[in-house]
Amino acid sequence: MRAENFKLNLDGPRNLARTLSLVENRSPLRHLILKECWKLSGKARIVGITGPPGAGKSTLASSLIRQFRKGSKTVGVVAVDPSSPFSGGAILGDRIRMMDTSLDEGVFIRSVATRGAMGGLSAAAGDLVTVMDAAGFEVVIVETVGVGQDEIDIVREADSVILALVPGLGDDIQALKAGVMEIADIFVVNKADREGADKLVREIEYLLALSPARGEWTPPVVRTVASRNEGIEDLAGKLDEHHRFLRYTAGLGEKKKQRGTDKLRKLLAEGWEKELRKGPLSAEEEEKLKEAFAERKKDPYSVAEEILGNFTWEGTE
Amino acid sequence: MRAENFKLNLDGPRNLARTLSLVENRSPLRHLILKECWKLSGKARIVGITGPPGAGKSTLASSLIRQFRKGSKTVGVVAVDPSSPFSGGAILGDRIRMMDTSLDEGVFIRSVATRGAMGGLSAAAGDLVTVMDAAGFEVVIVETVGVGQDEIDIVREADSVILALVPGLGDDIQALKAGVMEIADIFVVNKADREGADKLVREIEYLLALSPARGEWTPPVVRTVASRNEGIEDLAGKLDEHHRFLRYTAGLGEKKKQRGTDKLRKLLAEGWEKELRKGPLSAEEEEKLKEAFAERKKDPYSVAEEILGNFTWEGTE
Repeated sequence: MRAENFKLNLDGPRNLARTLSLVENRSPLRHLILKECWKLSGKARIVGITGPPGAGKSTLASSLIRQFRKGSKTVGVVAVDPSSPFSGGAILGDRIRMMDTSLDEGVFIRSVATRGAMGGLSAAAGDLVTVMDAAGFEVVIVETVGVGQDEIDIVREADSVILALVPGLGDDIQALKAGVMEIADIFVVNKADREGADKLVREIEYLLALSPARGEWTPPVVRTVASRNEGIEDLAGKLDEHHRFLRYTAGLGEKKKQRGTDKLRKLLAEGWEKELRKGPLSAEEEEKLKEAFAERKKDPYSVAEEILGNFTWEGTE
Repeated sequence: MRAENFKLNLDGPRNLARTLSLVENRSPLRHLILKECWKLSGKARIVGITGPPGAGKSTLASSLIRQFRKGSKTVGVVAVDPSSPFSGGAILGDRIRMMDTSLDEGVFIRSVATRGAMGGLSAAAGDLVTVMDAAGFEVVIVETVGVGQDEIDIVREADSVILALVPGLGDDIQALKAGVMEIADIFVVNKADREGADKLVREIEYLLALSPARGEWTPPVVRTVASRNEGIEDLAGKLDEHHRFLRYTAGLGEKKKQRGTDKLRKLLAEGWEKELRKGPLSAEEEEKLKEAFAERKKDPYSVAEEILGNFTWEGTE
């Protein structure tokens, strides 16, 4: 498709799927699509689910989808989780098919392949959420496995973040990547029928008591057995509560505002890196500089000044 | 001091201390100093020590200093650790004074206050190492507490990285920040007379066996009781071995080369951020953009294109 002829079309699952693919695969049309989508977006409620592998995040997501569908809400899902059954995995895949989501136009699930370049993943996931939002889904769920900085950055953009944990995974919660505890708005102890659930709940509550206060919101700890749909209503209730809290405290508006400038910063960093790669820091140039620095013929401070001095900003006169 | 009159002087502890302060406090003379120092640097052997609080990193550093002094090597220390006794702490401070390092011109210890802006810390620490290197210290030890990304970035620049652990801190080693295990060239189980030392050694060896191979170097695990100077000769031996390995495989040259371009990238990112702050992303402008994005009057993709389009690179024709 040529850029001149481009016309955004998000009607129906096939058009939506095609648009998502263009964005995910970094098509040259990507920015055209995203500019249009940005205008249409900003209405969806964005729910992040993260947690270690094996915490049952996808089962939890499935249960939440069903819960939202009961309330007739349309739901889009962006799953950034290599182990996610949404990505075609085995056992739980059946459960999802059972839900007949493939026949339910109110639900659309997209899984993102984890690429080598993790830096691009969080940008891509955010863009896919924007497209789903623009397509009119009332709720967009983003699922990531909470192991890398990039995955944390992805869910950080959600309105509400659920951190799913399970008893007896062998890791105490201190083993979680630094920063994960801090972004959770709601803790879920999933598979709560397992031994050790009480201990895990106590540990979370203990850690929460130690953490610095976060305004007026104290993250609740919800017990679920997602595979049997237990505790899901409670969880949905807490999600609603958090959403009302955000609205009430203007936190929601702040989050939405922040999302735009965060995106801008990412785009600028990307563009600047590309600019450097074209000129002063091309692979060849970088190799030469490495040698010159090591031999002390040049120093990085002078070279940085020179490169920065050669960039000029024309401003907006 | 005016820039025109500036003359680098690293002779004796007072001049060195003054120069380090100018660099640490971001004096306008900083880049002048660092350019001169860069030319003189690149000769020191840089040893990083990191690990969780309570692992005895400073005692370990003291023991290593003594060991290097036995071989008549001069030693500079940059301690980036709020809990470090080098920063004026209690008990161990005595031990260090016992060593009469204050009277020994072959040893110079500098502690860096952990500032709020952690982003600047790794840049500052690297610059202090460059100054120490330029001042002619044969060994420069960098000590950081291995908890944040920034601290990890600091030791990553060392030729050899020691990761210090202790038995019975209550955390199993999986609780270490992701990325710490990977940068260690030598593991130290300090306070190895404590219960649980064998278990910890086994855990490390097990994890090492699971990790992807790193060329021909297999990180050894050394047991020490630094407070009684036990195992320090063994540790120094392993350090020498690693240094020889780096020389032999040309890894040392690669590390030194990488350091220059890493520094350049940091300086460029800093300069670009400053440039943005002056113009298109001033605090005021950013606030306006936030509103416009949230109200969907503008989109980050178009604004990024506009800003990037207004930067021009003049190249080196």
